[in-house]
Amino acid sequence: MVSAGEKPAAGAAEEYNYEYFNVSFPQEYVAHVEISRPEKLNAFVEKMWLNISAIFARLSHNPSVRAILLTGAGERAFTAGLDVQAASQGGSIINPLSPSPDVARKANTLRRDILAFQACITALERCEKPVIAVLHGISYGLALDLSLACDVRLAAASTAFSVKEVDIGLAADIGTLSRLPKAVGSASWVKDVCLSARVFGAEEALRVGLVSGVYKDKGAAVAAGAELAAAIASKSPVATAGTKELLNYSRDRTVEEGLRYTAVWNMAMVQTGDVKDALLSGLKKTRPVFAKL
Amino acid sequence: MVSAGEKPAAGAAEEYNYEYFNVSFPQEYVAHVEISRPEKLNAFVEKMWLNISAIFARLSHNPSVRAILLTGAGERAFTAGLDVQAASQGGSIINPLSPSPDVARKANTLRRDILAFQACITALERCEKPVIAVLHGISYGLALDLSLACDVRLAAASTAFSVKEVDIGLAADIGTLSRLPKAVGSASWVKDVCLSARVFGAEEALRVGLVSGVYKDKGAAVAAGAELAAAIASKSPVATAGTKELLNYSRDRTVEEGLRYTAVWNMAMVQTGDVKDALLSGLKKTRPVFAKL
Amino acid sequence: MVSAGEKPAAGAAEEYNYEYFNVSFPQEYVAHVEISRPEKLNAFVEKMWLNISAIFARLSHNPSVRAILLTGAGERAFTAGLDVQAASQGGSIINPLSPSPDVARKANTLRRDILAFQACITALERCEKPVIAVLHGISYGLALDLSLACDVRLAAASTAFSVKEVDIGLAADIGTLSRLPKAVGSASWVKDVCLSARVFGAEEALRVGLVSGVYKDKGAAVAAGAELAAAIASKSPVATAGTKELLNYSRDRTVEEGLRYTAVWNMAMVQTGDVKDALLSGLKKTRPVFAKL
Amino acid sequence: MVSAGEKPAAGAAEEYNYEYFNVSFPQEYVAHVEISRPEKLNAFVEKMWLNISAIFARLSHNPSVRAILLTGAGERAFTAGLDVQAASQGGSIINPLSPSPDVARKANTLRRDILAFQACITALERCEKPVIAVLHGISYGLALDLSLACDVRLAAASTAFSVKEVDIGLAADIGTLSRLPKAVGSASWVKDVCLSARVFGAEEALRVGLVSGVYKDKGAAVAAGAELAAAIASKSPVATAGTKELLNYSRDRTVEEGLRYTAVWNMAMVQTGDVKDALLSGLKKTRPVFAKL
Amino acid sequence: MVSAGEKPAAGAAEEYNYEYFNVSFPQEYVAHVEISRPEKLNAFVEKMWLNISAIFARLSHNPSVRAILLTGAGERAFTAGLDVQAASQGGSIINPLSPSPDVARKANTLRRDILAFQACITALERCEKPVIAVLHGISYGLALDLSLACDVRLAAASTAFSVKEVDIGLAADIGTLSRLPKAVGSASWVKDVCLSARVFGAEEALRVGLVSGVYKDKGAAVAAGAELAAAIASKSPVATAGTKELLNYSRDRTVEEGLRYTAVWNMAMVQTGDVKDALLSGLKKTRPVFAKL
Amino acid sequence: MVSAGEKPAAGAAEEYNYEYFNVSFPQEYVAHVEISRPEKLNAFVEKMWLNISAIFARLSHNPSVRAILLTGAGERAFTAGLDVQAASQGGSIINPLSPSPDVARKANTLRRDILAFQACITALERCEKPVIAVLHGISYGLALDLSLACDVRLAAASTAFSVKEVDIGLAADIGTLSRLPKAVGSASWVKDVCLSARVFGAEEALRVGLVSGVYKDKGAAVAAGAELAAAIASKSPVATAGTKELLNYSRDRTVEEGLRYTAVWNMAMVQTGDVKDALLSGLKKTRPVFAKL
Repeated sequence: MVSAGEKPAAGAAEEYNYEYFNVSFPQEYVAHVEISRPEKLNAFVEKMWLNISAIFARLSHNPSVRAILLTGAGERAFTAGLDVQAASQGGSIINPLSPSPDVARKANTLRRDILAFQACITALERCEKPVIAVLHGISYGLALDLSLACDVRLAAASTAFSVKEVDIGLAADIGTLSRLPKAVGSASWVKDVCLSARVFGAEEALRVGLVSGVYKDKGAAVAAGAELAAAIASKSPVATAGTKELLNYSRDRTVEEGLRYTAVWNMAMVQTGDVKDALLSGLKKTRPVFAKL
Repeated sequence: MVSAGEKPAAGAAEEYNYEYFNVSFPQEYVAHVEISRPEKLNAFVEKMWLNISAIFARLSHNPSVRAILLTGAGERAFTAGLDVQAASQGGSIINPLSPSPDVARKANTLRRDILAFQACITALERCEKPVIAVLHGISYGLALDLSLACDVRLAAASTAFSVKEVDIGLAADIGTLSRLPKAVGSASWVKDVCLSARVFGAEEALRVGLVSGVYKDKGAAVAAGAELAAAIASKSPVATAGTKELLNYSRDRTVEEGLRYTAVWNMAMVQTGDVKDALLSGLKKTRPVFAKL
Repeated sequence: MVSAGEKPAAGAAEEYNYEYFNVSFPQEYVAHVEISRPEKLNAFVEKMWLNISAIFARLSHNPSVRAILLTGAGERAFTAGLDVQAASQGGSIINPLSPSPDVARKANTLRRDILAFQACITALERCEKPVIAVLHGISYGLALDLSLACDVRLAAASTAFSVKEVDIGLAADIGTLSRLPKAVGSASWVKDVCLSARVFGAEEALRVGLVSGVYKDKGAAVAAGAELAAAIASKSPVATAGTKELLNYSRDRTVEEGLRYTAVWNMAMVQTGDVKDALLSGLKKTRPVFAKL
Repeated sequence: MVSAGEKPAAGAAEEYNYEYFNVSFPQEYVAHVEISRPEKLNAFVEKMWLNISAIFARLSHNPSVRAILLTGAGERAFTAGLDVQAASQGGSIINPLSPSPDVARKANTLRRDILAFQACITALERCEKPVIAVLHGISYGLALDLSLACDVRLAAASTAFSVKEVDIGLAADIGTLSRLPKAVGSASWVKDVCLSARVFGAEEALRVGLVSGVYKDKGAAVAAGAELAAAIASKSPVATAGTKELLNYSRDRTVEEGLRYTAVWNMAMVQTGDVKDALLSGLKKTRPVFAKL
Repeated sequence: MVSAGEKPAAGAAEEYNYEYFNVSFPQEYVAHVEISRPEKLNAFVEKMWLNISAIFARLSHNPSVRAILLTGAGERAFTAGLDVQAASQGGSIINPLSPSPDVARKANTLRRDILAFQACITALERCEKPVIAVLHGISYGLALDLSLACDVRLAAASTAFSVKEVDIGLAADIGTLSRLPKAVGSASWVKDVCLSARVFGAEEALRVGLVSGVYKDKGAAVAAGAELAAAIASKSPVATAGTKELLNYSRDRTVEEGLRYTAVWNMAMVQTGDVKDALLSGLKKTRPVFAKL
Repeated sequence: MVSAGEKPAAGAAEEYNYEYFNVSFPQEYVAHVEISRPEKLNAFVEKMWLNISAIFARLSHNPSVRAILLTGAGERAFTAGLDVQAASQGGSIINPLSPSPDVARKANTLRRDILAFQACITALERCEKPVIAVLHGISYGLALDLSLACDVRLAAASTAFSVKEVDIGLAADIGTLSRLPKAVGSASWVKDVCLSARVFGAEEALRVGLVSGVYKDKGAAVAAGAELAAAIASKSPVATAGTKELLNYSRDRTVEEGLRYTAVWNMAMVQTGDVKDALLSGLKKTRPVFAKL
């Protein structure tokens, strides 16, 4: 049903034409999504949320894509977060249009809006293909929300991170508070950075496990991300998409539930011809070729 | 209802008059709770459990408090844990009064008592305001139970930690076994220290994420804790209390459940005037003043 | 019922006679299980799965055992994982016998088989006594599945780890994807190594918390494991078995559920005489002697 | 965001123009959705799934709607279920287009399609406004899936129900198996009707709790449904939408989780002016008028 | 700890002296709690909430109590629910004192208050001893909240039930919406009565399983409740308290979790001497005497 | 692996040779398991637990079986429950062999034994094929545990049910307390019968949903069970086994989790040829023939 109308050709970058995003296909089976509003430090206006969600929903089902790189344009920022100035002008989550003075009615509108914004971010987590975020420069607020919904996080040495929301009177509500405690290995550190909104650097992010690689500058970080994307794209897409799904599922549930879901998932997936192809290639020392997924 | 009778004035330290605890208000919106039985290495007798629970329940609803510091008096210990000698004299969890020789009846009494002790510790986690524990010197057994129920853990370089319970024939039951696996980033390390009861130091605690800062001595550690408390106290209390609640909730549940609860929480909280005040202060480069919570 | 027929004498190694495993009792209350197919890098054929499961099920209820060491024979590998060559010849999880060409019927057989293989691994986690895995050399695929079901992981400096499954077209389904996200402190790193199947070393494993100790060579690592096993074996078995159970339970559930289960567990276990014995020994500076469990 | 573009006027039936559905607004705040393909016993083709989902998503946010009635056109059937003939011609869930002969790739397509179909049904459960289904005549397969996602189920005496899926070689996967065990009070009966696919009548449905009212014929049942819809529509929409949300949430979770979510929900909603208006109307014996939600 | 100060003598009714409740001990091991504000249809003012919670907390640990009967004084009502008139005068859940005009601050106060009210109701569910509610006459709002937290519900034929909250602009938040879906066997009926606030009778309550017995008048219903209480009180209190705990636990969790918790519970409780006493009494046809719990 | 050694021929009743059970294959694809110790009212001794578990584990994977009937031999009882006399002689759950006087060590043995007994009962729920229990005469204690682990429960009019455990000082721990709250539609009734141990009849069991059919005598009830078994056996085994699995899974989890698991399950199962066969047979009005599962 969903799949019926979705047959983009490989590298059909022109089909991904969005004002603030550059979508390219730098090599076979790899997509590159660049946030592109560098003159505003890649800060997000509402339209960008909707667009990034749409882009990843399409990449999720694009059979020519097996790994995705997410970066920010320009040297100064991955993203500075929400464009507060634009948001303050109304119709946004921090300054909602108020058709009613009643608290409950405002609350209802707010809840719908927050859920809708969250869903935009979750589109990256739901994307069936692994996503590698490469952060650099200013990476505040939304930068965390977005990259925490990705699978792998790499950073340039210069990256300046901040969970910024308490500084504008908010408990972060688009995903950071739900995902950060499961992404790193120090509950004390999580509370520290979320409660103080202090800026921290790439080495600290590496030490606590927020990122899994730090590189000397943006160029080196993006190159490393591209290399990892290429490595993933060379594997069976049945194997990599399944690995993403099963890791995300298991993160949140008991080991018993994880094992059960895994068995049911694989009762179909192990029947793929890719296992045979991979084994044969292994024996023959050739590179296996896998059909599109 | 609960809130009705709870109107402590700011800095009303005299209202927090407990034998083994010093409660002070060193600066606006910051409370300092000091465990004070230094002649016994701050070891806990039953009365202290009840008192610490009462203190944090009151601070939780005290509108003049936005961040809390927890420390131990004296140079030698944060706390050496349970006062085993006192506990051995009967009427305690490790030597319960035995009104009946029947195993089931003893079990029932024990369960009530364990749940009651656990609730005393959980009072720190349930406290709506962020709590920063600063550990130093001997920090055994209960020191872990208590500090794991806090939000941020800092330590002096000399701190000697131990999950001590297996050494007295017990699986720790007041909270460490439930909270430690979620507080640090190495399941192997958790099992190691809980099964061996070995003493470990502050650097090791930092490496695995148990604490998020190590300082040269107690004085420096307490100063760092106070500084962090002041930083948190300067933010909107709506934002910091919400951040604590949402992080604790999400730690234990699926990302989906975390996001849903967050949206419902914030449909009320985003309506606070603090957002506007914080944004304006940001623009004007002034320090925002937030009403009490 | 189960317990009725299970009365192995201490050190009755001859009762643990399995083709590819050496089971010994190097010291009181410590069992040592060695995977022993060194000529094939300790790669697993089906029989070995069933045997390791049987061994740990028996050790679980063996009252003469309080801690278990798991190692691999030979210098080259802990285990290279599944014996792919053997598995390719049919009747295995990656090349199942196909009594039917129908996809659903194959799926049903596969699900049964995956669940059965998972249960073999889970036997290590279910074993009531703490298990310490010491890894060295090649430690691929199944090496991770197995050691993640252990309680403590130590490694020789030379260990080469890899979550290998995506290289043969599979999402790992025997346990790694369910347990790894809960064992280490970096979700980004977990995705990295599981999606790329890249080899990583012991220092990296230590940094992310996968292992809790790295030693210069296999000999030193095994010695450290044996020392830890001896330390655990010297404690009350009521305390150590309870600690394992409660940590595993709590890892997967909310803090509230963990506390409740802990209270119910300990309403029986605190009634043990071991508490009194441990306390008295502590006062008398003697080594306590605990009855078998 | 979502709410921005959604300002349908009350009774704007012409805006809900879908080929196989009649949407009307028979009285203030009540919407009536009629499945209208009577010549085919209201059997569903793919387009209808998408349309019914779109209709309920719009009604969910339509401030002029407070209760919704769902019925089937004609005398013979609420719906006979999936139009098997159309579905057999390819591109459907039971006969998917097969771009690839690989089992894993087909599985992936199937999973996407099943999730998409499920989401169409779940749109009725997610609709913020209470939905009352009135069944009559043939009510097979999809009739159960759809009505179980509604809030209240009423039936004409002549209704013939069947959980039909096993008769076409399928375990029902669009919702019946997930929702039926939570909708009625006999697990034995649930298994009986799901495993045998036998037809059962309205009285039996009433006895086990599947429906909460049975009426002599379709006319009487629809009239009763309309009356209930009108009663619900006369209440505060803050109260009725909250009641639906909280009942659905609590059905699936522990009482403790239900209570906690309820408290957080109501900390906003109790601030509505509707409480005061309802209380005053109660005292004055007048009918309260509530603002739109 | 908790248990230390709690040594009420059997039948010490004078120790349970509360303005609006009569607590008596009509026979050995049976307590009777009567809501007694008949001139106001037993409507609840705030003080009554606190008192009923305190009463059940004490009965929970009173060793002379094995079963509890809850009834309402007078002929007209079990309880008409919240005393809306008193509540409207401020300082209550539906008209909170408003120390601050800020929505978030009001929300925070409301959440505390709702949680506190919920906890009063939950005290009946947490009471270790089985509680039998006997309803009669007007049984609105709070009557449902309270009786759903009891174990058994009986009713006089004349009882008039109503889930009243939507009529005052509220989604019921003290427990009905969390407990009702788990108490009866028709989700459709639950939504019907909660969304319409319609009054329903005892026969309907019996048909859907809300009550398990209906009697001709209040006298007969109370007599039946007393008889059941006496029957329960004649059993081993270890057995009946365990049965209550395990049924409540299992209601909310998977069967697997229920079985596991049960095994851990009973590893202590099966060691009671009551099993032997009960078996011997069974053989000797005598009535067993069990020690206090 | 498990499946390898399991190739029983259809109707190979002689392979199911157990002292207290008659296993027959009365018609194609239907197995009949009869509890056969009528001279002792089919009361269970330990050996019978192990045997019934083994029988259902084998039937689960027997491709010649698609539905199973469970009955009790003789006219007087389905089963009177545990053979208390035998159990009292030691080595059983209610009178365990006591190798140690230490409470914790006894508790450990008891826990192992309870888990092992529970697993015997759960074997019926885990059996992949639907199981229909037909009860008659005395059906106490274990009769409930066993039949609640079946899928459908039918009863003769004369059946006398009782949840008997509280009468021997126990909270039922083999499954009734975990499964009964999910099997029927009245929490009040569940507490009533579990706390009072009173005997109730077939009509009452039908009214609350415990059984889904009552017949005039044992003969009629068994005939009805056999007819239902035959009906289930005539369907696609892929469909019926999947239906059992998905209903059991969903009963215990949120609707969202149920839907997700269902989609993953069916991404393999919908690929069966049975769908096509069933559809064609439907068109041709012939009876479909399905391959073995």
